[in-house]
Formats: sequence, structure tokens, C-alpha cells
Amino acid sequence: MKPIKVGLLGIGTVGSGTFQVLKRNQEEIRRRAGRGIEIAMVADLNVERARELTGGACEVVADARQVVEHPDIDIVVELIGGYGIARELVLKAIANGKHVVTANKALLATHGNEIFKAAQEKGVMVAFEAAVAGGIPIIKALREGLTANRIEWIAGIINGTTNFILSEMRDKGLDFDVVLKEAQRLGYAEADPTFDIEGVDAAHKATIMSAIAFGIPVQFDKAHVEGITKLQATDIRYAEQLGYRIKLLGIAKRAEVNGVAGIELRVHPTLIPAKRLIANVEGAMNAVLVQGDAVGATLYYGKGAGAEPTASAVIADLVDITRLATADPGHRVPHLAFQPNAMTDTPILPMSEITTSYYLRMQVADQPGVLADITRILADATISIDAMLQKEPAEGESQTDIIMLTHQTREKHVEAAIARIEALPTVAGQVTKIRLEQLS
Amino acid sequence: MKPIKVGLLGIGTVGSGTFQVLKRNQEEIRRRAGRGIEIAMVADLNVERARELTGGACEVVADARQVVEHPDIDIVVELIGGYGIARELVLKAIANGKHVVTANKALLATHGNEIFKAAQEKGVMVAFEAAVAGGIPIIKALREGLTANRIEWIAGIINGTTNFILSEMRDKGLDFDVVLKEAQRLGYAEADPTFDIEGVDAAHKATIMSAIAFGIPVQFDKAHVEGITKLQATDIRYAEQLGYRIKLLGIAKRAEVNGVAGIELRVHPTLIPAKRLIANVEGAMNAVLVQGDAVGATLYYGKGAGAEPTASAVIADLVDITRLATADPGHRVPHLAFQPNAMTDTPILPMSEITTSYYLRMQVADQPGVLADITRILADATISIDAMLQKEPAEGESQTDIIMLTHQTREKHVEAAIARIEALPTVAGQVTKIRLEQLS
Repeated sequence: MKPIKVGLLGIGTVGSGTFQVLKRNQEEIRRRAGRGIEIAMVADLNVERARELTGGACEVVADARQVVEHPDIDIVVELIGGYGIARELVLKAIANGKHVVTANKALLATHGNEIFKAAQEKGVMVAFEAAVAGGIPIIKALREGLTANRIEWIAGIINGTTNFILSEMRDKGLDFDVVLKEAQRLGYAEADPTFDIEGVDAAHKATIMSAIAFGIPVQFDKAHVEGITKLQATDIRYAEQLGYRIKLLGIAKRAEVNGVAGIELRVHPTLIPAKRLIANVEGAMNAVLVQGDAVGATLYYGKGAGAEPTASAVIADLVDITRLATADPGHRVPHLAFQPNAMTDTPILPMSEITTSYYLRMQVADQPGVLADITRILADATISIDAMLQKEPAEGESQTDIIMLTHQTREKHVEAAIARIEALPTVAGQVTKIRLEQLS
Repeated sequence: MKPIKVGLLGIGTVGSGTFQVLKRNQEEIRRRAGRGIEIAMVADLNVERARELTGGACEVVADARQVVEHPDIDIVVELIGGYGIARELVLKAIANGKHVVTANKALLATHGNEIFKAAQEKGVMVAFEAAVAGGIPIIKALREGLTANRIEWIAGIINGTTNFILSEMRDKGLDFDVVLKEAQRLGYAEADPTFDIEGVDAAHKATIMSAIAFGIPVQFDKAHVEGITKLQATDIRYAEQLGYRIKLLGIAKRAEVNGVAGIELRVHPTLIPAKRLIANVEGAMNAVLVQGDAVGATLYYGKGAGAEPTASAVIADLVDITRLATADPGHRVPHLAFQPNAMTDTPILPMSEITTSYYLRMQVADQPGVLADITRILADATISIDAMLQKEPAEGESQTDIIMLTHQTREKHVEAAIARIEALPTVAGQVTKIRLEQLS
């Protein structure tokens, strides 16, 4: 049987990783797929470098449109990134009846509905294992491995840059700015790290997982996105003393507000019990914890980025497409796990309506009655306190830190209580609020 | 589209779990599969109980042959267990053109080659996600998620009973016999726990994973099977002092002996560094660590047994078959990951030829020259020592324990050195040998 022909758009880090792994393991992959998988064309603006990397093994062009238009190409692998030209090329490839593999989470989180609809109509597959958590086959686990389950929630460490920074901040007691510079020096953070450290990248991935878990469209615009730039080393230390670690989690969760179903979709720094397996995922590693009603909790761990881990996911998609290309399109695995005509419109909840626990830190005057005022405000808002830590004021200081962990409560009630606490004359500055998940 | 019809053979723990989850989540599952999945027939010797469990929702028969012969049944789910009647029924179902789902690791590890060959010839699927690590989709990860990789090794905690016992022995400092009784009382160990505690169950699962990882036939008879019954609480404590945990691991690993490729396939108690994520998998939980050349290490964690976790895997297989039934049989996912005509005959190595590190404990006389004799014997066998722990003799005792951790070495060299050490007049009794894996 003749090999399936692949056209690669962009041969940067992931593209060259894909080329290398396909070449190195071609025999092993053919033995699995039952058919060779051959990169027949590569498009890259840097034609010289692309020629060098591919060593004359395939045609190299500067214009990606030549690839998506080429009649011999069966599968287009989009590794350009971004929303502009990538969207145009993916839609064009679909229109030309080609299957698509992409690692582009930004594109799918924002234009996924349009892309999947076009693919559905044309009867082609769009595969995107590499878009979430790099080499970890989490899309496959959610979409195929856990199909028996009503998924209750997903919580993932899905951005390696921020997890590396948080691990270093904790290990070395350093502040965010210092560690960010180190991460940039080591190549764990990009020159412009905004998408990572502000939580945007994690939110793209959480958005994609929420659609697959709950059968809803991708809705990145409704996600709550909060990064780690404001996180202080002092809060990491206090959390540790209370038995918690702080991780940037992407969370997608079924919820109910006044008896009406909703979905929580949020990315923010989160305290999690130190004894949980996921709390011990360190450095640039990723992990996703999934709670299903039948299976209980399952966890998936591995490298979330890098040339070859991401190539591993891209190639798994190529093999899947090779295997599934002969199946009746109506019976292939649906793009978003649920059949297109069986999606629901369960709304994404605004942050004010989400329910979780909270870590609250406030700087207070070291004088009688302060704690009584604060606990009264919390009690009025029906917020229960689960644990408390009060430090003696440092030598010569008249102020001290109070840290409280609350029971599960609705965000709007916590916000209201915080406003009242901040208005107390004995409380200095703002209350630091970090959400807390037990993940049990 | 009319539902796909399933016949259940055996409605014990997993069977009733499967029935319940399919019923509870039928709407969710139909939205994913694009087609209903209906249990149309159940066979169980206890017809009364089966009728009660199914509440009249389907036909109940005592004779399983009626199910595998029935023209309306599309998929047969075998949950009887054992090698005898189960094998016969599975082969009969295949001969009748029915797809098969089974949770029966004993059957597949011993008769898998025969069963997969029959299924291949008949063009039907035999799915068995539930046979390894319960609800964790590890078969799917290995067979589909990691297809880009040359798998280098797999190491798994794949028996919940023994992991529960080892966790309790460590936590409470109790001996094996005591904890086994507790495990039986709590339902974590069966009345006859032989298959679990002697490592046979783990070896069945490791055998299946080895075939999928390396493209070799299942060869349970070549597996090295060693349980936890001889493990002493004292070794767990010493391991802890050296920074290690002891887990019963199922290991499948590529190796080379004198330039010739081989496979290590072994189940035994293993020291692993306490800081590894998998070392912190406690109680009855399972986890499998997979090393691929492109993706690096990935880990899969969850419940390895129980009614609903196992049902989760059985139903995922049912959905997969529903989706793949329309695909050209030659393009479906191969049973053992590699195409049947692309399997290799890489041999499973005898234990004497495997290479790993070792924990050695010896009871020695507290007198000069003993350590010199021992280290000389090890040096003669070119075995390097990585760490050593020597205890002062207890009050009034003339003997003491020496514990050594070795570098990587071949098992036969260690065995030869142990024989020489045991022959020393200053060494009492036998040397305790436990294998050690860094898993990095």
C-alpha cells in the first residue's frame, strides 16, 4: 500500500521534531499504521533552512497555499501558530478535502467551532492531540478512553512555563520577577512570555478540554483567565505551612446555580493539598486530573512541550487518521467527543457564580478586636473558616498577617466580604485572595 | 440508527457495574457514540439474581452459548474469567462474527495469540482495555496515543491488592501476614489471594503490555513472576532510610545482550526513588509509567479495579467498536498495536541476563575484615556499590545488618557474588536481594 502523503506547514521546533521522529521511527510507525506516513511537502518562509532540515527528502516551498492546494497531499499538518494565516490555511485545506492535524490551541480555542463545522461538512478529520499538554494523550483519553463517564471536572497543570516558575519560586524562595528572568535564560520562558504567565495559553487548552468533556462548543471568550504575575513568594510560603502547594490550574467543572446547570471554566493560581499526586508535578511537566462518575479520578502526566514530545502527539494523530480514513465519516471519533448534533448549550458561568474554597491573606493592626471584626464579616456572609494562621508581628512592627482558608463558598459572597474587610480601619491595603481546590 | 446489541457473559461485580453505568449514562454515551448501546442479553448461572439486577430490561439465560450463537447480538462481553469456558466462548463468538470485549487478562496473557489470530481472520475486533489497570485507558495510550514512539520500557503498579498491602506495611510498620488479613477483611484481597500476592495477576497484565509495546506475541510462560509474600518489614524500613519505596512493579523493557536485542519481562518487588511520582501511588491505586523515545516519560494513574472503574473501560471498548465497526478491518487499530504481519520474534530474556540495580541485605558478624571480604567479592564480580548502610549491632547482639545498593549490573553476576558472600563464615543465613530501578 502506498504511503499516506503529508504536507507540513512550518518547520520550526515542532515541525522539525515531527520530521525527525517520523524519519527515525518510520519502520516502527509503519508496522503500527499498516502504511507508511511520508512528509511529501514542507512550506516555510525560510526555504533555505527548511531544505537543510529535510535534506532533500521532500519538496520545499515558501508558499503554504501550494501545499494545501496540492492534489497529492492527504493530510496537512499546521504548525504555523496564531489565528490569522493559520485559520485561512486550515479552512482551505478542509475545503480541498484534506485531513488536518494541528498543534494550534489558540486557533482551536477561538475558531474551533467554525473549523470543526467545516470539517464535518466536508467529511474530513481535524486532529489536535498536540494542542493540549504536548505529548500526553489527554485528548484521546477524554474523547475515547473515558466515554463511559459523565465527566464531573478536569483540573490540569497545562502550562510548563508557569509550573517551572512556581516550582522555582517555592524551591528557592525567590520572587516572580527573578525566576522569570532565570526561566527565560534557560529557555523555559519565551522572550515575550505574556501568553504563558498571564494564563492565556492554559485557558486555550482548558477551553478545548471543556468542550470535549461536556459536549459544549469552544468558548474561549467566556473563560476566566488569571496568570501568576501577581503571586507573591510570601503566599507560597504560607500555603506550604498550611499543607498546600500553589499551582496554575486550568479548571473545567460542572456546576449548578439555583438548580440550573452551568460550567465553570477558569484558569488561576490555586492552592491544592500537598499530598495530592498532582501537587508534586514539578518543573516544566504537565499533568491533567479528570474526575469521571464511573472511573473516579484518573491522572495523566508527561512533558507538555518541546520538539519531540509535541511531535509524538502530532504523529499519533497522523497514525489515527491513517487508520480511520477508511471509516464511514459518521462513525469516526467526533471532533469534540460528542456528535455535532448532540452538543448542549449549557452556559459557562460568570466568575461571580463559581463555588470553591479560598485562601485569604490580610495585613492587620496588632490590636484587640481586629479578628472579631473580620470573623463577624465572614459569618455574616455565611463563609465558614476551615483553617487560620496568625503570625506574631515582626520585631518593631505594629502590623501582622492573618491567613484564613475558607470552606466552599460562592465567589460573589467572598468578594462582598473582602470589600467589607478592606474597609475596616484596622486592615491595611488589599486582601490577597487565592482560590483553593481539594481535588478529591 | 438502531442501537448496537450487546450480550453480557457473567453479571458479577464488573458485569453489574457495566449494566448500571450503561443505564445511568446512556444518554451521554449515545451522544458520544452516535448510536445507542443496549445490553440485549445476559447469561449467568444465577438466573434469578441476574433477573433481579437487570430488572426485566433484557433477556436472561443460564447458558452462555445462547448469547454467542444469537443472531441479533453484535458484541459479546466476556466477564466470566479463567481460561476454560471463557476461551471456548470467546472463540465461538469470534467464529460467529461477533466483536468481543473482555476484561480477562489471564485468558489473553495465555491464549491471546490464538484469540487475536482468530479475530483477525474473521475480521472482528477483540477489545480489552479493562484487562490492564482497570479504568485507566492505558491500552489505548500505548496502542494509539504513543504510536510515534519507540517504547523503551514500561513499569507499572498494576495490582491494587499488593499495592494496598505494601502501603499498609510501610505506613504502620506491620508484617506481611498481618496486613494481608486486614486487606482480606476490608475486601482489598480475596479469600484466596494467591494470584495477587504471588505476582501472577500483575504478570498477566505486564505480558499484555509487553506485546503491545514491542510488537511481540503474548508470552506469559516466559515472564519472571515474583510476589510480595517474602518481603519483610525490615527491608521496607531500610529502603526508606536510603530514600526508596518498595513497590511490586510489572516491568517490560528493551534490552541488549552481547549486541542481540531482547526483552525483559518481569514482576517483582522493586525499590524506586521515593521522590518519583509513581513511588507516591498509595493504597489500591494503579499507575503505569511509559518511556518513549520521542515523548519521554508519561504516567497514567487511577483505579485499577472495582465495579465501575472496570466498567468504564469495558464501555469505552463498546463505544470504540461502535465507532470502528464501519472501518475497513485492515485499517482498524491492530489488537496488539502492530499489524499482525509486522510482529517480531525478539526473545524474552531469561532472568539471569537482565540488568538492573540491587538492594542487598546481609547479616554479618560484628568483627574486623567482614566488610573487606564482601566488598572484595563484589569488586571481583565488577559490581559497583552506590550506597551502603551499616547498623550498629543491637545491645547484646554480636551480629549486624549491612545494606548495599549496587550500580546497574547483570543478574547472573549478582547471583554468583551472593553465593560467594553466603559462603563466608562471617555471614549468617541468606542474602536478601531486592531489585532496584531508578525509572529515569
